[in-house]
Amino acid sequence: MRPWYNRLPQTAIEAAMPVRKPNFSPPFNVVRASHVELAVRDLGRSRAFYVDCLGYMISAEEPGALYLRAVEERNHHSIVLREAKAATAVTLGFKVASEDDLDRAADWFARKNLPTAFPKVPHQGRTLRTADINGMPLEFYFTMDQSARMLQRYATHQGARIQRIDHINCFTPDVQASYDFYNEMGFRLTEYTETDEPNGKLWAVWMHRKGNVHDIAFTNGRGPRLHHIGVWTAGPLDILHICDVMATSGYLPNMERGPDRHGISNAFFLYIRDPDGHRIELFTSDYLTVDPDLEPLRWSLTDPQRQTLWGHPAPKSWFEEGSEFISVPVRDPVLAAQPVVAR
Amino acid sequence: MRPWYNRLPQTAIEAAMPVRKPNFSPPFNVVRASHVELAVRDLGRSRAFYVDCLGYMISAEEPGALYLRAVEERNHHSIVLREAKAATAVTLGFKVASEDDLDRAADWFARKNLPTAFPKVPHQGRTLRTADINGMPLEFYFTMDQSARMLQRYATHQGARIQRIDHINCFTPDVQASYDFYNEMGFRLTEYTETDEPNGKLWAVWMHRKGNVHDIAFTNGRGPRLHHIGVWTAGPLDILHICDVMATSGYLPNMERGPDRHGISNAFFLYIRDPDGHRIELFTSDYLTVDPDLEPLRWSLTDPQRQTLWGHPAPKSWFEEGSEFISVPVRDPVLAAQPVVAR
Amino acid sequence: MRPWYNRLPQTAIEAAMPVRKPNFSPPFNVVRASHVELAVRDLGRSRAFYVDCLGYMISAEEPGALYLRAVEERNHHSIVLREAKAATAVTLGFKVASEDDLDRAADWFARKNLPTAFPKVPHQGRTLRTADINGMPLEFYFTMDQSARMLQRYATHQGARIQRIDHINCFTPDVQASYDFYNEMGFRLTEYTETDEPNGKLWAVWMHRKGNVHDIAFTNGRGPRLHHIGVWTAGPLDILHICDVMATSGYLPNMERGPDRHGISNAFFLYIRDPDGHRIELFTSDYLTVDPDLEPLRWSLTDPQRQTLWGHPAPKSWFEEGSEFISVPVRDPVLAAQPVVAR
Amino acid sequence: MRPWYNRLPQTAIEAAMPVRKPNFSPPFNVVRASHVELAVRDLGRSRAFYVDCLGYMISAEEPGALYLRAVEERNHHSIVLREAKAATAVTLGFKVASEDDLDRAADWFARKNLPTAFPKVPHQGRTLRTADINGMPLEFYFTMDQSARMLQRYATHQGARIQRIDHINCFTPDVQASYDFYNEMGFRLTEYTETDEPNGKLWAVWMHRKGNVHDIAFTNGRGPRLHHIGVWTAGPLDILHICDVMATSGYLPNMERGPDRHGISNAFFLYIRDPDGHRIELFTSDYLTVDPDLEPLRWSLTDPQRQTLWGHPAPKSWFEEGSEFISVPVRDPVLAAQPVVAR
Repeated sequence: MRPWYNRLPQTAIEAAMPVRKPNFSPPFNVVRASHVELAVRDLGRSRAFYVDCLGYMISAEEPGALYLRAVEERNHHSIVLREAKAATAVTLGFKVASEDDLDRAADWFARKNLPTAFPKVPHQGRTLRTADINGMPLEFYFTMDQSARMLQRYATHQGARIQRIDHINCFTPDVQASYDFYNEMGFRLTEYTETDEPNGKLWAVWMHRKGNVHDIAFTNGRGPRLHHIGVWTAGPLDILHICDVMATSGYLPNMERGPDRHGISNAFFLYIRDPDGHRIELFTSDYLTVDPDLEPLRWSLTDPQRQTLWGHPAPKSWFEEGSEFISVPVRDPVLAAQPVVAR
Repeated sequence: MRPWYNRLPQTAIEAAMPVRKPNFSPPFNVVRASHVELAVRDLGRSRAFYVDCLGYMISAEEPGALYLRAVEERNHHSIVLREAKAATAVTLGFKVASEDDLDRAADWFARKNLPTAFPKVPHQGRTLRTADINGMPLEFYFTMDQSARMLQRYATHQGARIQRIDHINCFTPDVQASYDFYNEMGFRLTEYTETDEPNGKLWAVWMHRKGNVHDIAFTNGRGPRLHHIGVWTAGPLDILHICDVMATSGYLPNMERGPDRHGISNAFFLYIRDPDGHRIELFTSDYLTVDPDLEPLRWSLTDPQRQTLWGHPAPKSWFEEGSEFISVPVRDPVLAAQPVVAR
Repeated sequence: MRPWYNRLPQTAIEAAMPVRKPNFSPPFNVVRASHVELAVRDLGRSRAFYVDCLGYMISAEEPGALYLRAVEERNHHSIVLREAKAATAVTLGFKVASEDDLDRAADWFARKNLPTAFPKVPHQGRTLRTADINGMPLEFYFTMDQSARMLQRYATHQGARIQRIDHINCFTPDVQASYDFYNEMGFRLTEYTETDEPNGKLWAVWMHRKGNVHDIAFTNGRGPRLHHIGVWTAGPLDILHICDVMATSGYLPNMERGPDRHGISNAFFLYIRDPDGHRIELFTSDYLTVDPDLEPLRWSLTDPQRQTLWGHPAPKSWFEEGSEFISVPVRDPVLAAQPVVAR
Repeated sequence: MRPWYNRLPQTAIEAAMPVRKPNFSPPFNVVRASHVELAVRDLGRSRAFYVDCLGYMISAEEPGALYLRAVEERNHHSIVLREAKAATAVTLGFKVASEDDLDRAADWFARKNLPTAFPKVPHQGRTLRTADINGMPLEFYFTMDQSARMLQRYATHQGARIQRIDHINCFTPDVQASYDFYNEMGFRLTEYTETDEPNGKLWAVWMHRKGNVHDIAFTNGRGPRLHHIGVWTAGPLDILHICDVMATSGYLPNMERGPDRHGISNAFFLYIRDPDGHRIELFTSDYLTVDPDLEPLRWSLTDPQRQTLWGHPAPKSWFEEGSEFISVPVRDPVLAAQPVVAR
């Protein structure tokens, strides 16, 4: 009845093991994935997509920027769109548990020789801007402007009736390094893909803070790049409805993959691309992961049901394309193994 | 405000038109597609698929035969499985409105020099066995044994909770000839696919008697062959559930296409193959077509949303494979045009 | 295996039986319940309810009148709202199968000494205005203006995403007389409620033309009055969503009963009242009834699951209130029995 | 942008305020509500209800005891049924984050002069048995036997396809005292009901650890008594299906309230009673509450939408009945105010 992590091999051997014991005393307390800022080339076109089609609510519309939230979110924004010449991912935002956690976070990143700054960020309290081990820009904050509660103003729910942001998924050139970094930060592993050779290597990891399958996930690939933002709907019918809407209102080319079910996370999902190619996953039906002794699920890289419990193989674009971070160099991945395309 | 069929061109020109005026005074009154008899090679294996997995109810289990019905059906059977050396489609069953309609039907088929017989058929009243213009075996009956009503015995609903048989879909070597034949029988066109050249040719037709999109459909292809039986579920979540069940209980290879939405018929659908390769379509969300002046919808053969409003292209097997009818020669189709695979 | 109606007792005895053989050769061919015209006191207020809240589409907005249709309807209107000093039901509309059926209908009503007229009716072809045996105003027509097909313009579907009109339900002072009248017209009985004494009396009947549980229903009560219009949704979640919308946008008092499930018809339902008190039933999940030999289901007046398979007892208003027809006297019912309120 | 709790009045005044600052440094770390042990009088009858009807999975069946879990649960049990002469609630189980938390918990309860013991509990690791301020029996543990993962063995999902335990709801004679006790333990308030007089009093509180609306809730009433166990389903259709099943398989009298929507928690719910009268709430569609600065929602005791956003008033039994804890005296509540029954 010992927790799974107490059954890991001793330290000497463990060095060769890809999966670590979770860090239950992290250097600072991250609450959850909170928001993403995206650079887009035409704010009007993005507004049509996110607001008129998907049903996002506008918290603020400012020159050159649009702040959006989903129906249950009381925080001011979970997506920030900022007009720019090139479409890039600007920053990934995480909420921490207190103002003190911000200072502890700044110390921790500084000790790792990573950049730290506290710029003024609209609609947010004190905000730490930094980067992870691969240069991926992160921001941490504790307080944000609060907006009107729309969850029970049902007449305003439109499109996919997206409830909230769920997670952020990134390509990394080194899954093991990213996993180790975020594991140290206190993110906990729930599921992972491993290559099948002896001393198998991590191919992808799903890690959480808020108690479901993930707040952040990493997949082996040219990176760092943002693969997608995952947003949560109340059930599969909201996802089927947005398929119907997109397919009949000019957004058929923006539908990239699904709806199908992942083996990993058990999610019923749909991947779509915004007008600049940024990828959104509509996502529902994963499970509760708050138990500290919840044993991570291992999937073999050669098991196609890992990606697609049922449904159609993912297209090439889904494996290869992602949003680069502004001015962050992209490197080739450490691993060369290729995932088996489903069926 | 004239009905669409009164706006068809005059007879002389009409000869060149593929679409006819419906026959509102048919030679006999077909009520609906009622049942299909399939030859299967291993009744136990078929029972596991239809009953244990899909949730069909057993009306009778006899040596060499299994009679199945869906949850709302009070008729004794909508699928008959009969053990045989080879997997074939045996006969397609239609219900007529009265005993007199059976005699009128026999006359009509005889006048067309098609075979007619009234064999004894278990669990059915007087039954006319005949064949259509392409040799496809048909049977017509008015009365059938009635079984216990299970619709409100919800605890017995299992699997996909299939409600009832909906339609029969066949390959025909000559869509125009099949359409003309069934149009004369009183089946009404609701949607059709046409080639795009001047004097476009019918590629596929959907025709009904019972008041929704179809009781029978024909697609251009090597035929006659049964493409699939369509069965109706109460909504998309029953279809998603059976995907989950099949994908995790050994039936993943039996999932052929979908779930996706057709443009034609507006159906949310899933195509599966039984252990002998017979194809079943789980089908929901089409619309009411009882209005005699309902104008058929035309789709271009080059419009991919016709087949797939959204979702994935149909696999090759879906275009090419079907169940042959026992001892009925299959011919190459009249038309050589190829449908554009979606996206 | 004889159809149920051939097992009815001989004529002499049958006179005492409430249930008759269906009329398979009706005097004229009614296709389905088609539309209802309602007098309302404030068209703006009604527009807010039907269009902004429920999601009805506007086919025409004319001085003093609003023509509405649901998402799958290609006919111009299924609800006509006409501004007037008093809120009444104006007329109940049925589609017939041809122009000739209109003439046959006029003959039949005239032979029964019921009023007949062919007034000009906007957006409809030739229209017969008449009344049933209780004075309930009816209109019959064959052609109507056709409107743009919205079923696959999903981005325009709002509110309850109502698909189409389903049925009309009325109070009658004499259920047996109403049943006999509509049975002669060719409407077929699917379910009925009967009192329990020897020689039980009909308390309520559900009768169809289009192939599901009903186009028209009658319940014992002060009448003739319109009890409700039944409109069909694609599934229960559309009904739950409109509950959420109504309860949080000022329409909570308009929610009268449900959502619950009826035993009769198996429908999942919600009853709401429009701003003038006209009652709408949102309705889904009944079953196919096209088989001529489908035996009607008998329910005892003392069985509460008849009305409420599960859920809450109907409120008093639901049993007692209805829309009067303009200038049509209302009589007390023949039967004095009171239905048992569920649980 | 200060968190709501920093806007609470100063201490002197705060004493008169019912709502406190959350305790972000609790004496020990409770992860979530984990399980409930119930005494039942006939284990076979309970098995029929929980397993055959609701679809619970059996983890162990031992003489006099049945251990049940829901489809996503990997922990051995979330409901333990133990046969006894009288039907009572035996203990409420909570998972803590580590073995050390158990010792810290024992210290904390001991310092409050509450009983502590570490009895051997089958299928659980070290388990602290204690009681709260009202004598309500609690148990805390860190490790439990792990069972086979059934979430993706969809063919085994039956009945309501319950996913997991969600929360525990109790009557307390003193809501303020219970709130203060659990607030000190680190449970965080998400919603509350307050009386309307100046210096309003807490009538009911919803408090969480795991990040949704609640792990535990308290309502003013004769107590301590268990009001209900809340269990989570993937969506409303699973709840509607179990209504259909229960209403048609002999469990209609066990359906107490709903399905309707609560204003509080936004849950779509159904309350049922097991064969011994223990109450279960099937519950879905609340929201994420992990943000430490999430401001609790206040509801007035006189607002009927608090309890019933829409739907029917709760029956008297729902307000008055609950499961007593074995040998724990029940006291009358401090507050005499009566909630307004909805509508």
